[in-house]
Amino acid sequence: TGKFDPTEHPHRRFNPLTNDWVLVSPHRAKRPWQGQVESSDEEVKAAYDDTCYLCSGNTRINGEINAKYESTYVFTNDFAALKPDTPIVDVEDPLFRMHTEQGESRVICFSPDHSKTLPELSVAEITEVVKTWQKQCEELGRKYHWVQVFENKGAVMGCSNPHPHGQIWAQQYLPSIVEKKQQAQTAYHQKYGRSMLQDYVAKEASALERIVVENQDWMVVVPYWASWPFETLLLPKFAVTRMTELSSAQQTTLADIIQKVTIRYDNLFNCSFPYSMGWHGAPYDGAQHPEWTLHASFFPPLLRSATVRKFMVGYEMMAEAQRDLTPEQAAQRLRELPEQHYKVAR
Amino acid sequence: TGKFDPTEHPHRRFNPLTNDWVLVSPHRAKRPWQGQVESSDEEVKAAYDDTCYLCSGNTRINGEINAKYESTYVFTNDFAALKPDTPIVDVEDPLFRMHTEQGESRVICFSPDHSKTLPELSVAEITEVVKTWQKQCEELGRKYHWVQVFENKGAVMGCSNPHPHGQIWAQQYLPSIVEKKQQAQTAYHQKYGRSMLQDYVAKEASALERIVVENQDWMVVVPYWASWPFETLLLPKFAVTRMTELSSAQQTTLADIIQKVTIRYDNLFNCSFPYSMGWHGAPYDGAQHPEWTLHASFFPPLLRSATVRKFMVGYEMMAEAQRDLTPEQAAQRLRELPEQHYKVAR
Ligand SMILES: O=P(O)(O)O[C@H]1O[C@H](CO)[C@@H](O)[C@H](O)[C@H]1O
Ligand SMILES: O=P(O)(O)O[C@H]1O[C@H](CO)[C@@H](O)[C@H](O)[C@H]1O
Repeated sequence: TGKFDPTEHPHRRFNPLTNDWVLVSPHRAKRPWQGQVESSDEEVKAAYDDTCYLCSGNTRINGEINAKYESTYVFTNDFAALKPDTPIVDVEDPLFRMHTEQGESRVICFSPDHSKTLPELSVAEITEVVKTWQKQCEELGRKYHWVQVFENKGAVMGCSNPHPHGQIWAQQYLPSIVEKKQQAQTAYHQKYGRSMLQDYVAKEASALERIVVENQDWMVVVPYWASWPFETLLLPKFAVTRMTELSSAQQTTLADIIQKVTIRYDNLFNCSFPYSMGWHGAPYDGAQHPEWTLHASFFPPLLRSATVRKFMVGYEMMAEAQRDLTPEQAAQRLRELPEQHYKVAR
Repeated sequence: TGKFDPTEHPHRRFNPLTNDWVLVSPHRAKRPWQGQVESSDEEVKAAYDDTCYLCSGNTRINGEINAKYESTYVFTNDFAALKPDTPIVDVEDPLFRMHTEQGESRVICFSPDHSKTLPELSVAEITEVVKTWQKQCEELGRKYHWVQVFENKGAVMGCSNPHPHGQIWAQQYLPSIVEKKQQAQTAYHQKYGRSMLQDYVAKEASALERIVVENQDWMVVVPYWASWPFETLLLPKFAVTRMTELSSAQQTTLADIIQKVTIRYDNLFNCSFPYSMGWHGAPYDGAQHPEWTLHASFFPPLLRSATVRKFMVGYEMMAEAQRDLTPEQAAQRLRELPEQHYKVAR
């Protein structure tokens, strides 16, 4: 049956961070798509929208009035999934196990400009976003063990408002996915005496084929075990366990790399590229955690165009993630895109 | 801070099958939705569509011609994610681990009638679907360790053709989610000497509050640890580890319960209710597997109406699943719906 070719033959790859496998079926990329077509939102927006509950000075759904902010702006989610004062309960039953979760859910506006998205902000403006993430982690990390920083971008990712914004959910317990990463990194560190993701950065730096873009401090790769078609992993080239440890210079280079990767995303299909992104690092539990390396993941759903996405359904929900092109193919496509945003270029 | 109320207070519940937690934030159901609205496909369809590649006697994209079938019909997926003859490779590296996966992907048409969906078929017709699942599991189970039977229903679930159909993917390795269920059920069986899900059925039978519908052989519950708003778990009331072990009478009662639960789904928002569903049972590896109980899961995305879904994004992708109503609330709503399909009733 010939020689194995990863760009042709179905195979599984292992995600050492979560212990999940992904089924890679690269020949599937050839199948025609007759299913659902997403609407690509290319409407030109105004810098201020008086119906937007995130715009500066506007009144929100619960009657509160946003500050007249000029950079970033943080407030408590009007429909917070987590609350600080929930009564404590803890039920230990093999089949009916549950416990209270106390926490906080906040919204962070990235800019007062309603018409912009992250890739359209300047490095200075993105640096303010990074500094706000850091400040929030510092503040919430004093009270909670876990601080989840994330962004849902685009209607297809459940984002209900196009104003550039992200969220921060803080809580006492480690969420399931984080707990898995904690265990995997701990096991690796015990075995090899080094941080898993620091080793991984070094290997990707010499392999080259999965690198999308890098600068002096940061590297963006399509990870070897990527699930989403154009999923990326943003990694530091230096040892760092938590967001709160970044120096001022590292905050600026982080803003630079975020701008670079999100511009490439927008340039892939000449659209505002939807994704969910989020940060993972050591928990705020007072321990050192040398096993952890701070990192961000981008999970973007688009597969073939601005309107045709990958669905993680059926087999993916019952069995495991499946992808239709290799991570190396995805990395090459992203790497070869222009550095300038398509809206500026045209 | 008062007494804990599960319908009001954020809490986490544990899924003992997969070892994942879900964050339950029932007060979130009150938030207004300003985001993406799905199109609900209420177009009336013809029983035969000459452009449909699943209709009886039609030519498919690769030039093959469908049989003139009158009940169910099975063929190899024209763009199969798994192939039987892939060259074998196995790379054991802590960070770059991969191996070939051999297998087969098949499509199963549930009926020649293009206009129908599972809940609109008769119990006799659904029994033919069950028998086909069983036959396929028998056949593929002789060659492969794992046979994943599933259905994607509705465009919002990535289904590219409304003709009633499901899929069967068979492979050598246990997929990640199945591997977790294997481990969890084995651990439970070692500890308690009984099958986890048989114990669970017994507990739900006396708790009552999560039961949606049942007949003499089967029970449908919204599991205590449900992630999707109206997720259900279909469980046998008798000991059975695999699809291939069902008696002829149990096949008929299974068809009956499938009809009952899918009719209730359609009646919830008076629409063809989208979902992914799939079967899990003991692997076809020659062993006994007394720890396993055969079961099916339905993962439907709708939350508030025929057009407003739950998005598993951001927090859910980075941290863990989150839901906006309790499983007990969801079960009650499904339980109280009429037994007759809304299209017949009106
Ligand atoms: O094979 P289909 O129905 O064309 O494709 C659908 O189901 C597959 C299996 O769940 C998924 O991998 C695809 O993303 C989805 O669009
Ligand atoms: O809080 P939002 O942006 O209204 O809601 C969005 O993000 C949340 C966190 O990822 C998800 O739970 C919701 O399903 C999604 O619609």
